[in-house]
Amino acid sequence: MTEFFKNVAPVKFEGSETTNPLAFRHYDADKMILGKSMKEHLRFAACYWHNFCWQGHDIFGNPAFDRPWHQPGDAMEMAKMKADAAFEFFSKLNVPYYCFHDVDVAPEGNSLKEYVNNFAQMVDVLEQKQSETGLKLLWGTANAFSNPRYMAGAGTNPDPKVFAYAATQVFNAMGATKRLGGENYVLWGGREGYETLLNTDLRQEREQLGRLMQMVVDHKHKIGFKGTILIEPKPQEPTKHQYDYDTATVYGFLKDFGLEKEIKVNIEANHATLAGHSFQHEVATAASLGLLGSIDANRGDPQLGWDTDQFPNSVEENTLVMYEILKAGGFTTGGFNFDSRVRRPSIDGEDLFYGHIGGMDTMALSLERAAKMIENDQLSKNIAQRYAGWNEDLGKKILAGDMSLEDVAKYATDNNIQPVKQSGKQEYLENIVNSYIYK
Amino acid sequence: MTEFFKNVAPVKFEGSETTNPLAFRHYDADKMILGKSMKEHLRFAACYWHNFCWQGHDIFGNPAFDRPWHQPGDAMEMAKMKADAAFEFFSKLNVPYYCFHDVDVAPEGNSLKEYVNNFAQMVDVLEQKQSETGLKLLWGTANAFSNPRYMAGAGTNPDPKVFAYAATQVFNAMGATKRLGGENYVLWGGREGYETLLNTDLRQEREQLGRLMQMVVDHKHKIGFKGTILIEPKPQEPTKHQYDYDTATVYGFLKDFGLEKEIKVNIEANHATLAGHSFQHEVATAASLGLLGSIDANRGDPQLGWDTDQFPNSVEENTLVMYEILKAGGFTTGGFNFDSRVRRPSIDGEDLFYGHIGGMDTMALSLERAAKMIENDQLSKNIAQRYAGWNEDLGKKILAGDMSLEDVAKYATDNNIQPVKQSGKQEYLENIVNSYIYK
Amino acid sequence: MTEFFKNVAPVKFEGSETTNPLAFRHYDADKMILGKSMKEHLRFAACYWHNFCWQGHDIFGNPAFDRPWHQPGDAMEMAKMKADAAFEFFSKLNVPYYCFHDVDVAPEGNSLKEYVNNFAQMVDVLEQKQSETGLKLLWGTANAFSNPRYMAGAGTNPDPKVFAYAATQVFNAMGATKRLGGENYVLWGGREGYETLLNTDLRQEREQLGRLMQMVVDHKHKIGFKGTILIEPKPQEPTKHQYDYDTATVYGFLKDFGLEKEIKVNIEANHATLAGHSFQHEVATAASLGLLGSIDANRGDPQLGWDTDQFPNSVEENTLVMYEILKAGGFTTGGFNFDSRVRRPSIDGEDLFYGHIGGMDTMALSLERAAKMIENDQLSKNIAQRYAGWNEDLGKKILAGDMSLEDVAKYATDNNIQPVKQSGKQEYLENIVNSYIYK
Amino acid sequence: MTEFFKNVAPVKFEGSETTNPLAFRHYDADKMILGKSMKEHLRFAACYWHNFCWQGHDIFGNPAFDRPWHQPGDAMEMAKMKADAAFEFFSKLNVPYYCFHDVDVAPEGNSLKEYVNNFAQMVDVLEQKQSETGLKLLWGTANAFSNPRYMAGAGTNPDPKVFAYAATQVFNAMGATKRLGGENYVLWGGREGYETLLNTDLRQEREQLGRLMQMVVDHKHKIGFKGTILIEPKPQEPTKHQYDYDTATVYGFLKDFGLEKEIKVNIEANHATLAGHSFQHEVATAASLGLLGSIDANRGDPQLGWDTDQFPNSVEENTLVMYEILKAGGFTTGGFNFDSRVRRPSIDGEDLFYGHIGGMDTMALSLERAAKMIENDQLSKNIAQRYAGWNEDLGKKILAGDMSLEDVAKYATDNNIQPVKQSGKQEYLENIVNSYIYK
Repeated sequence: MTEFFKNVAPVKFEGSETTNPLAFRHYDADKMILGKSMKEHLRFAACYWHNFCWQGHDIFGNPAFDRPWHQPGDAMEMAKMKADAAFEFFSKLNVPYYCFHDVDVAPEGNSLKEYVNNFAQMVDVLEQKQSETGLKLLWGTANAFSNPRYMAGAGTNPDPKVFAYAATQVFNAMGATKRLGGENYVLWGGREGYETLLNTDLRQEREQLGRLMQMVVDHKHKIGFKGTILIEPKPQEPTKHQYDYDTATVYGFLKDFGLEKEIKVNIEANHATLAGHSFQHEVATAASLGLLGSIDANRGDPQLGWDTDQFPNSVEENTLVMYEILKAGGFTTGGFNFDSRVRRPSIDGEDLFYGHIGGMDTMALSLERAAKMIENDQLSKNIAQRYAGWNEDLGKKILAGDMSLEDVAKYATDNNIQPVKQSGKQEYLENIVNSYIYK
Repeated sequence: MTEFFKNVAPVKFEGSETTNPLAFRHYDADKMILGKSMKEHLRFAACYWHNFCWQGHDIFGNPAFDRPWHQPGDAMEMAKMKADAAFEFFSKLNVPYYCFHDVDVAPEGNSLKEYVNNFAQMVDVLEQKQSETGLKLLWGTANAFSNPRYMAGAGTNPDPKVFAYAATQVFNAMGATKRLGGENYVLWGGREGYETLLNTDLRQEREQLGRLMQMVVDHKHKIGFKGTILIEPKPQEPTKHQYDYDTATVYGFLKDFGLEKEIKVNIEANHATLAGHSFQHEVATAASLGLLGSIDANRGDPQLGWDTDQFPNSVEENTLVMYEILKAGGFTTGGFNFDSRVRRPSIDGEDLFYGHIGGMDTMALSLERAAKMIENDQLSKNIAQRYAGWNEDLGKKILAGDMSLEDVAKYATDNNIQPVKQSGKQEYLENIVNSYIYK
Repeated sequence: MTEFFKNVAPVKFEGSETTNPLAFRHYDADKMILGKSMKEHLRFAACYWHNFCWQGHDIFGNPAFDRPWHQPGDAMEMAKMKADAAFEFFSKLNVPYYCFHDVDVAPEGNSLKEYVNNFAQMVDVLEQKQSETGLKLLWGTANAFSNPRYMAGAGTNPDPKVFAYAATQVFNAMGATKRLGGENYVLWGGREGYETLLNTDLRQEREQLGRLMQMVVDHKHKIGFKGTILIEPKPQEPTKHQYDYDTATVYGFLKDFGLEKEIKVNIEANHATLAGHSFQHEVATAASLGLLGSIDANRGDPQLGWDTDQFPNSVEENTLVMYEILKAGGFTTGGFNFDSRVRRPSIDGEDLFYGHIGGMDTMALSLERAAKMIENDQLSKNIAQRYAGWNEDLGKKILAGDMSLEDVAKYATDNNIQPVKQSGKQEYLENIVNSYIYK
Repeated sequence: MTEFFKNVAPVKFEGSETTNPLAFRHYDADKMILGKSMKEHLRFAACYWHNFCWQGHDIFGNPAFDRPWHQPGDAMEMAKMKADAAFEFFSKLNVPYYCFHDVDVAPEGNSLKEYVNNFAQMVDVLEQKQSETGLKLLWGTANAFSNPRYMAGAGTNPDPKVFAYAATQVFNAMGATKRLGGENYVLWGGREGYETLLNTDLRQEREQLGRLMQMVVDHKHKIGFKGTILIEPKPQEPTKHQYDYDTATVYGFLKDFGLEKEIKVNIEANHATLAGHSFQHEVATAASLGLLGSIDANRGDPQLGWDTDQFPNSVEENTLVMYEILKAGGFTTGGFNFDSRVRRPSIDGEDLFYGHIGGMDTMALSLERAAKMIENDQLSKNIAQRYAGWNEDLGKKILAGDMSLEDVAKYATDNNIQPVKQSGKQEYLENIVNSYIYK
């Protein structure tokens, strides 16, 4: 079999002093942290699409990469070559998981039947590859946004035939995910939104999307898929507005359709910031609403208003994210996927490795720092103290519903209360965090 | 009684050809549009705070205005002088409604008892003023964000005493609103959010806020207040993050606490854009979720990242907003409030009038244009046609829940469906809209 | 010859009451405004690239358009078919001008020699087309950003061979522009910037870019090109940072290389807003610095952080832009180009017309409104009055350099001056503007 | 003398393992780095205004702090008490420098003469304080933005009397700065911009500002002030648009008035990001243009659109900034000022210390990391290699101006050149940077 990344040996942990750019400095898979190995905590996945489907084009630029599997040729043969390259990459990278969209791995063909057939064949190939390499599937998904049939939405399309087409892809992708032992199934509604309100019926489209989600959940139970169904919020791009704007919006949608126990969120750092939130905010919000599912760790650029999908490289940002995840009990079926791509000028095969190695080291180091924060949890202690009044008489009665607005007003006025201001200590707490990050 | 705006006569409609800057060009209160007068459609309110409490300071600048009622003096006397000026202004402006926060109209005093007492006295004054002038109260509210006691939240404060203080203000403000015949009661949670997640318990604060909202709703029913309770979304500022981020977020919160039938939203244009949405989006979203209550018409500056609270002057933007409101059946208890302020260098009393006249004319003209759009509703016809498939067999079955995911997939695959792309016609529709705006 | 837009007859002015969506409501080419025809004022151009090269793909989506000239086939034959379609479109649209990049009109081929040869052949075709239709060339340009060779810059590339390649394209495109009677030559440095400072030498790249601009200016004079050289500012996208960030930045660059009398700017609305400015700001700034050259009228979406290149549809925004242009004396060699594209779901040929018709009507109406503003220029009169003090003794002496800092301080202190505040009248002036827009 | 910060002993270096929140973990003033002490590299300053003048108000909130020097009382007595508190703070903090605006330290009084007199008295006080404590003045400045007389600009005001008032403040502040041994004089044009173009003459205001800058430079030379004159760029806030938008804009302005050798920039992190740039970008740009003067190290919040002036706490961001400064040769007269304020809820005196300690530790650690990067400068080596072609024949000839556009085109075409793509290695380089930050 052809070797595609000849200059790269399997990537190993060599410690922070190594000068080998193709080694891990911090990700030591078996190192135990708070009773679990790094590998179990982080559950890293690499993705098929950015690494093996994207050709290095952007909206102003033509493909820049010269990958063998993108040369002209028989579509199924090329899909197999791509799978060879992908599994060589995943294996050498030493990630335990990968992720894919249906049309990443199989040619769409010229009809729905061709699609079904091609995809089925490629699922066989993937199954074989998983078996050979030990790689596992973090999640599968269907791409219902790239084909022009979805230009006005998939589940929210004005044409029920397009809904049906998308549903068929979801049906097949769920089946494949189950068969390949996938631990989650993800829905990113890239075109579930609008380009203009002038031609859009918001209420109708919400009903359609709610119906699709209910079908998905029903199907999951019917086929006995044990993984988690995940919605991936994003505020916009490619559409002007996307319905799954952020975690809080998805929560309202799920409550509306009675799905808040059935579906969780897959949070992406870059989507969080495009929605006007910090990455930590979205993770903490999801945790507080019981929706934390999985993470796409890729970041944006703070000065750019689109999805740059860069590899995470901030230990400062991700230590706080890891801290939220650890506080929430860690991942169950979720993990850290890199929905990341190298910059367009990073044309070499090695660049794919540099990107992931940097990302994995960033998250590993963030885990270590966050674990230290959790061990002697000064932040939580401060919070407990700060809200202590709510465990006392007045606070308890209010929260328990034992006092009406009038009761509270009477109490306060009769006692002519004067609350005492307490410092919020933000700078003190920020210094505490840095003391864990920079020993 | 002192006349504060001596250079200004009561503002009248003079038509679009007038050169009188202190006349309305488009707002003709009694003109009938779609069976109701402009006055009944628009239900304009001017606000107490920006016009009579703000002194022309900004975060880098000292007060720039020299209003008589801001000179040193006995606080209650000054409050009465302010009321004289305010009602002279409202009356000359010919708005039917006004709005206030408790501490806009009465001095806070040095204790809760003083507050209660001062406010009660000033409510008498306001009642008298309303009776003399015929002005009505669109809504009342409590300011639980300016006093430093609220620096870490009001309902979401870590100290239940602060919650109790805020609840007392709300209790008194609701009582005053009812007594003064207010048609709505508004809650803007300016400090209900966080400065840093490092000292914040999201779950706890959400519980507190939910409890407060439940108390408010219970109290409304108890006292027989017939108006609408409104939450005003805003994403941030003054806090780093505000829990009532946008309409979709508020919807999830209300669903969580079973309040989605009890509370509606008061949408502000500037808050919409700070949250990353168009003003039309927020209005359309609220209408589609059954939450459309009232509007703060003031806009932001598209290049600035804070709340500039400028008077609306875009007929293009507001025609679309009015169109959404008309499609939703118009206001019931709500109206258009100007939560707007003149720019700091607009130091003259006349400037307050120019700002409001421009805003009222903008909204009046937008109403006229939108009414024309509704009369022969080309947009709605296009939408009906675009989604027609959902009234046919496949669409109906899907929405009715008569087909499972597998059923849909089987149908699509067996028929090897190929949906036909249809143009979204955005440019065509944008031209249609402009043809209504620019005859 | 094949007719590509069979459903569209040549677009004519029919007035604001027409219900024909393929007619102009406001653009009446020969109507006289302030002594010149609308056609002469506006100097409209349509572009080759968005209309005839873009296939309806976006970063998440595959091509959505099914144009005949994008089907597989001989590259030169397809280029000729594209030219047929383009000139049919331009002619039916009744724009006097068009614009192109070298590789819009001719296949790049597999080598520089092929490029030169293909382009030369297609220039012959364009010349013939211009002669047949009477269409003129507003400007030509070279695309030195799409081919992956330019992924790290064209003039600012770390490899001088890439500079040479780009220079060759510019050489050929300038020659073609001259031969085709082009009235301007544009340089948009889409890749002249950086992806990361980590691999970038800012000083070196500035020298390279300055050198290229000097070469271009020298070449212009050498070949006797009488048109204007224009730089098109943009802050970012596709690169993280683009050196020609905005007009003020370009001004500093031009001063540095002594080119401020030789090069002007081509301002795009969408680039202005991405740089944090209003469109009017960029136009007014360019006018005040003597750099106003030409305009790309396409707008962005106020909620989106990337270049959406939408057709202008705001008369409110563009009246102010037209007002600045009229105050600056109008265009000389410049004009309004539509660097605009229909939304991806606007897949029909007619949509190209709807977009341009809406844009042309918007600009035509804006011209009419702005002309009214200029006729009795209340804004300029107010400005003259506001700054009147600078024509009096103190102001004149200061500006003439007749007083040192100490002189001024002595004068002010000795006289213990107390300047009197004057209202800035912003709301009053905004109302004046609306009174012109909405008669 | 009263001790204002009784709970705080002079802050000392205790190393990264300390649990004392009032000690430095990383700032070890005398530690030698690349041949200079940390103190000499960093040249830290604390500011008067945010720490001793700001009362904890925001645009929605009343003062939250209860400082003794803000209580009612004789203005000069309060100013002296404030000076006592300030110098106690600066001394305990162990910063070598401080900074002030004229009206931070002295009451404005009711007239220009009172201002001059009050300020002169307080300069005596400051001189005495400096002598007692050994503190030095990094820079002085005049506040020509808070008083309402400046609401429409200071140097750019439509009224030359306001220009004269501002010039008088600058005259006095420059004199005070010289007398107190200040090492720089800063000009931040907070109101030098516009609220609306509708009442603004851009050309006139630019002339006024240019004249003021020339006066300041002339005065500097006349009085023999040896420090550096610095302009502080900011894009907006409080005005809608500020003329000194960013470094590139200031460069164009300075070139226009022949001042590019006389004035440098004082770059603020938060202003950089508000202008759409990274902090590193602004520092690198200033260095590349020869304008790097001094730094205000305070950061913004990536999700907020206004100046939050937070203490720096990102070693990741500031290592790159320090790297640029070290590459540029380090500061001469400049330094790191903290134009930072604690969050409003940080009401305790200790919070002022926590903020600065965190900021100083962040910058000190960043210096250490950046120094390691410089020692074996992999980034610069990579850059040298990347641009090597420009030291070879073709590159040299191009840059030297020895080839015309035609020469280059002929060379390229004759040789049918095909440049070879090289990876930009962004991910590799980002990993290198992290390997220095996280050993």
